[in-house]
Amino acid sequence: MTSAYIAGAGMVRFGKFGPEITFEVMAKGAARAAMQDASVERSMIEAVYVGHVFGGPVAGQRVAVELGLGGLPVSNLENYCASGATALREAWMAIRAGAYDVVLVIGAEKMTDRVKGGVAPDPSDLDAMQGYVMAAGHALSAKRYMADHGATREQIAAVAVKNHQHSVHNPYAQYQKPVSLDEVLNARPVAEPLGILDCSPISDGAAAVVVCSEAGLRRLGISGKRPVIRGIGLTSGTLRVGLYDLNEEDISRRAAQMVFDGAAVDPSDIDLVEMHDCFTIAEIVRMEGVGLIPRGEGAAWTARGDTSIGGRLPVNPSGGLLSRGHPVGATGVAQVCELYWQLTGRAQGRQVEGARIGLSYCKGGTVSGTDGGSVSTVIMGI
Amino acid sequence: MTSAYIAGAGMVRFGKFGPEITFEVMAKGAARAAMQDASVERSMIEAVYVGHVFGGPVAGQRVAVELGLGGLPVSNLENYCASGATALREAWMAIRAGAYDVVLVIGAEKMTDRVKGGVAPDPSDLDAMQGYVMAAGHALSAKRYMADHGATREQIAAVAVKNHQHSVHNPYAQYQKPVSLDEVLNARPVAEPLGILDCSPISDGAAAVVVCSEAGLRRLGISGKRPVIRGIGLTSGTLRVGLYDLNEEDISRRAAQMVFDGAAVDPSDIDLVEMHDCFTIAEIVRMEGVGLIPRGEGAAWTARGDTSIGGRLPVNPSGGLLSRGHPVGATGVAQVCELYWQLTGRAQGRQVEGARIGLSYCKGGTVSGTDGGSVSTVIMGI
Repeated sequence: MTSAYIAGAGMVRFGKFGPEITFEVMAKGAARAAMQDASVERSMIEAVYVGHVFGGPVAGQRVAVELGLGGLPVSNLENYCASGATALREAWMAIRAGAYDVVLVIGAEKMTDRVKGGVAPDPSDLDAMQGYVMAAGHALSAKRYMADHGATREQIAAVAVKNHQHSVHNPYAQYQKPVSLDEVLNARPVAEPLGILDCSPISDGAAAVVVCSEAGLRRLGISGKRPVIRGIGLTSGTLRVGLYDLNEEDISRRAAQMVFDGAAVDPSDIDLVEMHDCFTIAEIVRMEGVGLIPRGEGAAWTARGDTSIGGRLPVNPSGGLLSRGHPVGATGVAQVCELYWQLTGRAQGRQVEGARIGLSYCKGGTVSGTDGGSVSTVIMGI
Repeated sequence: MTSAYIAGAGMVRFGKFGPEITFEVMAKGAARAAMQDASVERSMIEAVYVGHVFGGPVAGQRVAVELGLGGLPVSNLENYCASGATALREAWMAIRAGAYDVVLVIGAEKMTDRVKGGVAPDPSDLDAMQGYVMAAGHALSAKRYMADHGATREQIAAVAVKNHQHSVHNPYAQYQKPVSLDEVLNARPVAEPLGILDCSPISDGAAAVVVCSEAGLRRLGISGKRPVIRGIGLTSGTLRVGLYDLNEEDISRRAAQMVFDGAAVDPSDIDLVEMHDCFTIAEIVRMEGVGLIPRGEGAAWTARGDTSIGGRLPVNPSGGLLSRGHPVGATGVAQVCELYWQLTGRAQGRQVEGARIGLSYCKGGTVSGTDGGSVSTVIMGI
């Protein structure tokens, strides 16, 4: 089986931009940065995979044409907030199949021109239409977690403090200044106990990576080490069991098992994690769900600094969704960009020292889970 | 490299259905039929690929959960009218990569509840907003073709007569009764010279196939011959050159070259074609574009019966988009279902005798091509 490597990565800074900063502008910006980082010329790219949710039909083709890559095979992947990670997975499959040696993967989303204040629920999502929207679901999750494990509101809020502190040093982050625990606790309430700083923002942004086989690395003249994709696990199903345990995270457990088994990596081997912290509590519950923190201990780990850079298992050195931002289709690729920079020792100011193996985790779907959802987990090593 | 076979196929009849026949209902119906045809139990399916345009976020996951396939890797593919063919391509890649032995591919679209009378142009598609919509583009193509090659309106209309005649015997076709040349010529005008019977209809529908490696076929206990995917070519770019020759079809030529080269098949080996006849003229121009009919001769071939069942090179024995219908995300998979039935000798009443190698061609994007587009070509043999 051919191995797949990340040969280069690029992002545009996430944020809220005006109408002139279109989906295409951002996607092209990230793609060009990744291509430059990999020293790849346009003529060397053999296929393009684009993850997005709201880009509209053939959005990836529009970007490819504008990049001068028109003519190549282009596939648009949509798995809600896991769209970017799913695009990476299809690229990985194509490399493994021996179909290509050099491919471009882009995740992008322009949200501010479509979303006013939040993602409106689909009318077919009966739970969300009744008010059981994302924030409400995660608020219930937080309450349940506190009741079950004796965790405190302050411990949960510590996730936001940590992730905002991390992204002070991430030039691509939407937010680059620290917030205090008091600011998180006293922020505008959204769904009790969660306030606005417990929620990931509405963001525009794009991220891209160049994925290569070994032959592709040689063709690009890359002699230094590049992170190899050890495995990608994609699963689906009900996001939450809900009826008896809101925080059971069966779907996360299965996705992690798939990738740990496939990659022959033990959870104890993981040096850092990019985790889908769409809400503070989600980071905690999902770190436990994938088996990287014992059940019920994630809040305490966070408050103690165990998941901070320099701690036992750094989580979201990039700032995560909470502070780097969350342009939904871009997130899975942005997580992989961060792993790439960390594993190649280029994450200036936020470097996890000695990082050799990283895991990213991306989740997409509806909070009720009745619509199904998708989780993609990537393990990369160097 | 592992070969990929079509182990079974299933469709629901295409048509215009009420709100109770949802995207999920159709997708599940087609999937169950394909699974039954392949004698595959739910527990044997390892991954699901779903092509659609308007299904909404994580539509494939909703279908998977309702099929009892929740938990599997599910990827949603969108390449406009080539979405279903692109989903098949990703499944083919995964089989070739050795990742899976048995996967389910679904193409589905519910159009009647979203589209009133036609697909509204995206506001960013400036050409379409000015009136240069699909029908207008193909009308210009027809005028140009007639002027360049001395073809007649009657010869172009013969495509509709042929395809409606073919689908009299296709139980899955939206239309199952013949239309006369006079009916086509005198139908309500849409864009001169094209009338309503020159245009593919708005349709709801779904199609599915089970794709297997050789090991997968053995696991399913399939001993008889099954069509093998000889190659899939996907390309992108400007759909029409437009400025100097509306009917140049550079994108079709490239897609065909890609798949003929990859499959080591010569155009003269092709026994039948499922061609993306979204308009009558499109079938003619694209058959020429892929190199299966000499430039300028397609209209005469059609009028002479060369592309009818029993003719020199039968095109659209299923009825094609014009008469089987065109639920956009379903079309690429429906074409492959037809190839499967033809190559296994099961296309009762519309069988192309002795068919050994078939080609399907699917095209998605905007008529102006400024947005880019996508073409997927599949060659299957038995």
